[in-house]
Amino acid sequence: MPHALLTTVTDQPGMLSRLTKVFADHQVDIRYVDLHTRNKLSEIYWELTLGDIDMPHLLDELRALPDVHRVEETVPFGKIYGKRVIVMGGGAQVGLVAMGAIAEADRHNIRGEHISVDTIPLVGEQALAAAVRGVVRLPRAKLLVLAGSLMGGEITEAVEEVRKIGLQVISLNMAGTVPDAADLVVTDPVQAGVMAVMAVADTAKFDLMRQLKRRY
Amino acid sequence: MPHALLTTVTDQPGMLSRLTKVFADHQVDIRYVDLHTRNKLSEIYWELTLGDIDMPHLLDELRALPDVHRVEETVPFGKIYGKRVIVMGGGAQVGLVAMGAIAEADRHNIRGEHISVDTIPLVGEQALAAAVRGVVRLPRAKLLVLAGSLMGGEITEAVEEVRKIGLQVISLNMAGTVPDAADLVVTDPVQAGVMAVMAVADTAKFDLMRQLKRRY
Repeated sequence: MPHALLTTVTDQPGMLSRLTKVFADHQVDIRYVDLHTRNKLSEIYWELTLGDIDMPHLLDELRALPDVHRVEETVPFGKIYGKRVIVMGGGAQVGLVAMGAIAEADRHNIRGEHISVDTIPLVGEQALAAAVRGVVRLPRAKLLVLAGSLMGGEITEAVEEVRKIGLQVISLNMAGTVPDAADLVVTDPVQAGVMAVMAVADTAKFDLMRQLKRRY
Repeated sequence: MPHALLTTVTDQPGMLSRLTKVFADHQVDIRYVDLHTRNKLSEIYWELTLGDIDMPHLLDELRALPDVHRVEETVPFGKIYGKRVIVMGGGAQVGLVAMGAIAEADRHNIRGEHISVDTIPLVGEQALAAAVRGVVRLPRAKLLVLAGSLMGGEITEAVEEVRKIGLQVISLNMAGTVPDAADLVVTDPVQAGVMAVMAVADTAKFDLMRQLKRRY
């Protein structure tokens, strides 16, 4: 597990460069970074593998930089929010898939897993295709469920693209070509949510690769 | 709206420093950055406000760097996934809050909003308190709903902390001190989800500040 740091700095051009230079100087490997800005301050969350420097010295060097207000070690996000199952599509079906996925995630999280279920109700071919393509850029996203009654065209192309770079995709049984492009097709939305969580859970025996191209 | 860039680079120490130096040299202001690593490559997503350089020249400078494989302009995340309502707590109630929130988000998203509903079913005082504190570090998170039957102690402290830095919190009506610390208390989980989305939607008339400390 990498180390996690939270830094609070003045929001101005060059700040990120000032911090990353310290990491580069010490061969610190940045595994994940997340910056956002609120009220003239930027909060930057880092996950790092230390290089030729230990944590107390790294903290000292960062704290000595100008316009750095706060530096503290923190718990890695992966330990808090864990793997993410993403559900997108029409609201009615997204809600039912989420119900199944949340109930199943609860069963695994009670036994020590960390699985989140994230949803976005969304309509329109272009909007959905862009959202599908974006999933591979969402941190910790492991599996996508497409929930709707009709999806094809550019959404299907997007599904094929993201599957090629390793994202698993479950589709509800629906009209259009998206089911043909998915790893698995499920008719019952609640079951689709349950299977999605089982597929990413280490505590479950469900192997999506063994179910490849099946329809339930 | 800022510009968004997607860069694909070799995963090695110093890469981020190399890129941020270009931004610093041209007074480019980094509004958001998100880096993650897959198969020896790091994908870095940037949202930027341009300084003394235009986009074509910035793209050229980045592409000229060693170990930079791909640089492209892309659609900002905020336009795709939008504002996030986060629901956390016991699985059964999280599922029902999510149902309400997703159905309501669908109604607003159809009219051009972008609202996501993200959930994590989670038990235990320490785990929940850590997750509550983490919400302010999640990009685009606007409102937190706590769904359960008993929450207090350190979770209540965490709720008070995040409210102070501007996160809105809705609590289900439950045992423990969390309801006393929340902005609003709602008994019906589906209604709690609906109200949460109404509170963050620009297309809704619901003003959480006018409902402050009420119980439904």
